[in-house]
Amino acid sequence: MKQRIVVLGGGFAGVYVARELEHLAGGRDDLHITLVSQENYFVFQPMLPEVISGTIGLVDVVSPLRRLLPHTDIHVREVEAIDVGRRVVITSPGFRPHAHEIPYDHLVVALGAVTDFRGMRGLPEHAFPFKNLGDALSLRNHIIRSLEEAAVEDDDAELRQQLLTFVVAGGGFSGVEVAAELNDFVRRVARNYRSVDPNEIRVMLLHSQERILPEMPEDLARFAEKILTRRGVEIRLNTRLSAATGVEAILGDGTRIPTRTLVSTVPAFAHPLLESLPLPKAKNGRLEVTRELNVKESDHVWSLGDCAMVPAAEGGFAPPTAQHAIREAAVVAHNIVTSIRGGKRRTFDFRGLGKMGSLGHRSAVAEIFGIKISGFLAWWMWRTIYLMKMPGWGRRLKVAVSWTLDLFLPPELVQLRVGSSRGIGREHFEPGQEVFREGDLGDRVYIIVKGEAEVLKAAQPVARLRAGECFGEMALLNETRRNATVRCAAAMDALSLPKSEFTLLSANLPELRSSFQKMADARNENSVLASKES
Amino acid sequence: MKQRIVVLGGGFAGVYVARELEHLAGGRDDLHITLVSQENYFVFQPMLPEVISGTIGLVDVVSPLRRLLPHTDIHVREVEAIDVGRRVVITSPGFRPHAHEIPYDHLVVALGAVTDFRGMRGLPEHAFPFKNLGDALSLRNHIIRSLEEAAVEDDDAELRQQLLTFVVAGGGFSGVEVAAELNDFVRRVARNYRSVDPNEIRVMLLHSQERILPEMPEDLARFAEKILTRRGVEIRLNTRLSAATGVEAILGDGTRIPTRTLVSTVPAFAHPLLESLPLPKAKNGRLEVTRELNVKESDHVWSLGDCAMVPAAEGGFAPPTAQHAIREAAVVAHNIVTSIRGGKRRTFDFRGLGKMGSLGHRSAVAEIFGIKISGFLAWWMWRTIYLMKMPGWGRRLKVAVSWTLDLFLPPELVQLRVGSSRGIGREHFEPGQEVFREGDLGDRVYIIVKGEAEVLKAAQPVARLRAGECFGEMALLNETRRNATVRCAAAMDALSLPKSEFTLLSANLPELRSSFQKMADARNENSVLASKES
Repeated sequence: MKQRIVVLGGGFAGVYVARELEHLAGGRDDLHITLVSQENYFVFQPMLPEVISGTIGLVDVVSPLRRLLPHTDIHVREVEAIDVGRRVVITSPGFRPHAHEIPYDHLVVALGAVTDFRGMRGLPEHAFPFKNLGDALSLRNHIIRSLEEAAVEDDDAELRQQLLTFVVAGGGFSGVEVAAELNDFVRRVARNYRSVDPNEIRVMLLHSQERILPEMPEDLARFAEKILTRRGVEIRLNTRLSAATGVEAILGDGTRIPTRTLVSTVPAFAHPLLESLPLPKAKNGRLEVTRELNVKESDHVWSLGDCAMVPAAEGGFAPPTAQHAIREAAVVAHNIVTSIRGGKRRTFDFRGLGKMGSLGHRSAVAEIFGIKISGFLAWWMWRTIYLMKMPGWGRRLKVAVSWTLDLFLPPELVQLRVGSSRGIGREHFEPGQEVFREGDLGDRVYIIVKGEAEVLKAAQPVARLRAGECFGEMALLNETRRNATVRCAAAMDALSLPKSEFTLLSANLPELRSSFQKMADARNENSVLASKES
Repeated sequence: MKQRIVVLGGGFAGVYVARELEHLAGGRDDLHITLVSQENYFVFQPMLPEVISGTIGLVDVVSPLRRLLPHTDIHVREVEAIDVGRRVVITSPGFRPHAHEIPYDHLVVALGAVTDFRGMRGLPEHAFPFKNLGDALSLRNHIIRSLEEAAVEDDDAELRQQLLTFVVAGGGFSGVEVAAELNDFVRRVARNYRSVDPNEIRVMLLHSQERILPEMPEDLARFAEKILTRRGVEIRLNTRLSAATGVEAILGDGTRIPTRTLVSTVPAFAHPLLESLPLPKAKNGRLEVTRELNVKESDHVWSLGDCAMVPAAEGGFAPPTAQHAIREAAVVAHNIVTSIRGGKRRTFDFRGLGKMGSLGHRSAVAEIFGIKISGFLAWWMWRTIYLMKMPGWGRRLKVAVSWTLDLFLPPELVQLRVGSSRGIGREHFEPGQEVFREGDLGDRVYIIVKGEAEVLKAAQPVARLRAGECFGEMALLNETRRNATVRCAAAMDALSLPKSEFTLLSANLPELRSSFQKMADARNENSVLASKES
């Protein structure tokens, strides 16, 4: 009877466990390996920021899971639940709406960390996360769209300033690499936008501590600061992002930076699925594992990577990096096989080889076996080492070719839109911010979830709106322009429904239409009363 | 005073008019050129089908407009209206909801044709168009998703058959090229799906006439039929597509082909914007132009390409191909410049050089200067000629490199999802088709726009639903599984609202929630009555 090993997660941790298991399986037929992943590819995370600038092909940073793991059953699904008692994993439905169960004998939880902006004012609505390929492509498209719009809206100075300011929050490896690539990209392509002056472009990096790259020795961090500053990145140290709206980033000291592009690389949380699991967890929500990487008090559930607290040989816990995940994977695979076939278990003893961070255009910082390197040499090492670490020679060849072409071709400038992302939007507004202005085109209707707004006609307030109330539907129902200005009065969260969806719903749900119409009539009456009184 | 020339459309016609105008402008400063395009890139249409198989990089088939047209103002916007009286073009709003006007002295209408499935039962909801890069990428992602799901759903024979059948309707150049690339792609990558047997895969090409490629001589068309058939494409001649649902294609004779992937390359209509223009139009909605390519009865509005009826030198009208559009563009640019600077106008006299169609993997058919060529030589010519015709040597180099790598690397297999495409869906159902089944997970709510559905419990009909009624909300409101089966009773169009959006709306719009609840209660009572009666 085959032992069924189910691996959850398609990052470094999960993929390398499955890979190692495939090797250990050898010619023997006693293991059945299944891997569940949200996407059908593995993202080579260290190169993800290069997608922004397009120095490598848009999909060269990822490898199809099926090619990497030819002997593993791949389920491209989301994990909905884990039933530890019945030993089954329940995955999200595919084309047909029925749940799918995968039974296991051994379970490997490698779900990684997620970006979670909950509780941060305006961030869930307006900040771009930077975690997977979809995030990188969305950000890239948004940057190009901002440049395109800046080129067209040449008579609106306020809007142009918002469009041409790019803010990255978080000065760790990920934030620094994103800021560097973003800066290189916008400055390189700006010359193709005739009406955009390169001096109008601002790229800012916010960091809450007194120097960036806390993972690195101080002199390397200072080197990085110097290089980035010289290239035009404004670094703000000891600065915390406190809130965001669609048009500005608000700092801890109340400073408001007009921007339409805010990227946040912090914070990372344990995967939300772990929360409900009846397994021992640390305070930060990660799973507690032994040095043999089984989850404490369990002999058939294993965990590693960013979702586990892995005890390090030198004390403390292993950092959430790719090199650690890969070594943890080897230990997990070995120990699962020994617990099936017998043999001696291994412990996780890896101490790390070093750290590297790219600074974009031919510069990087690295500390390898205790030796500090910076500048071109570090960049060359960065490229060489990561190229060698990429799985699959086909992918390596493609990346090498792209890097070569990039030496003499201008950067890719195509805005890649796939499908329309209509749907209901969530927006956050801060007091004083205009939602729309009298005379604007009616393009969406708003529903207040929290907070307050005031309605103004000819600069006079005529009504106040609270949670549960809608506005903006009049221009949509009567197909006219906005007949009033609406401004946020108390920090407000709202849903916004695009015109196309509102029209579809109100045409087919008579109740909805009539309730909107009633609301509109009542408000009209009120505002007539209000203007009579005033 | 500069003459303002505004070109609408970023296809071959529009881009080549602007390019030619840039050349003719020379050092003189009397022309101001603006081009309005929906996307910030130009699609090299003849190579679009190659995006499906990924033999070339996903964005190599397009060129950024700003690189092609360095001296033109590019507006990446949609054209909302043309005010012929005031001589302004009104474009869609960007980040801010106000309309944007572009005044012109000369207007070039090159908006092309659009795919329009209106009036075709189920096609607007379920058929994939194939016109622009977004279409090609959506189709590619859908094909990969279908294979992924087929690999997982190994115990549902009916669903697997739907997932592994791919239908292309329309046997002209475009349909043949799409079918060929799709067939090559799915058969090449199928070996990576362990549980998919290549013999389960069906690729069908439907054509309403008695032979495919009506643009070509008969022997070349027969050659193409032979090649495609040998590679596994089932060609159905004299077959018309009459309707579609989410799970099948319905043919003219009533045959139902289970499939989840239906591509239709027909029909193309004139751009809907032309409809309201007070300019002379042919019956098919295209603009009537003279042989000098000004719109009839106008001296400052010009039109060309797929949205104009361009009189051909040999009688009849010029066909809607790239080679014709490029030559028309030269005539339009020349004539606009002469009408500004003086000089003799030209007429459009081009007769066409030949025709070529790729059949995928190293085969093609071509007729050039009356000579017929087929097979490998035609394919080699196809690649060479189109590579030379691509604008920009950077793009040419990239495509040449991709083609070279494709000789020895396996095809790209990454499912590229950008942003979530939630939003309200439209679906079409045919009588007898199940919408959902008792016990399924509740993932969406339906609103009937047209037609009828019946509700069944334990295989007994308990209620009948008509236009304006909703169903499926009970499982969503009470977070349970479907407590009944719903089946289409008379051909039905419905809106479907995903659970996430329904939850957001009903949580924040109390009226909506209560009206859904009332509906649910009433239905429950009825069905209790019905079961008592029975």
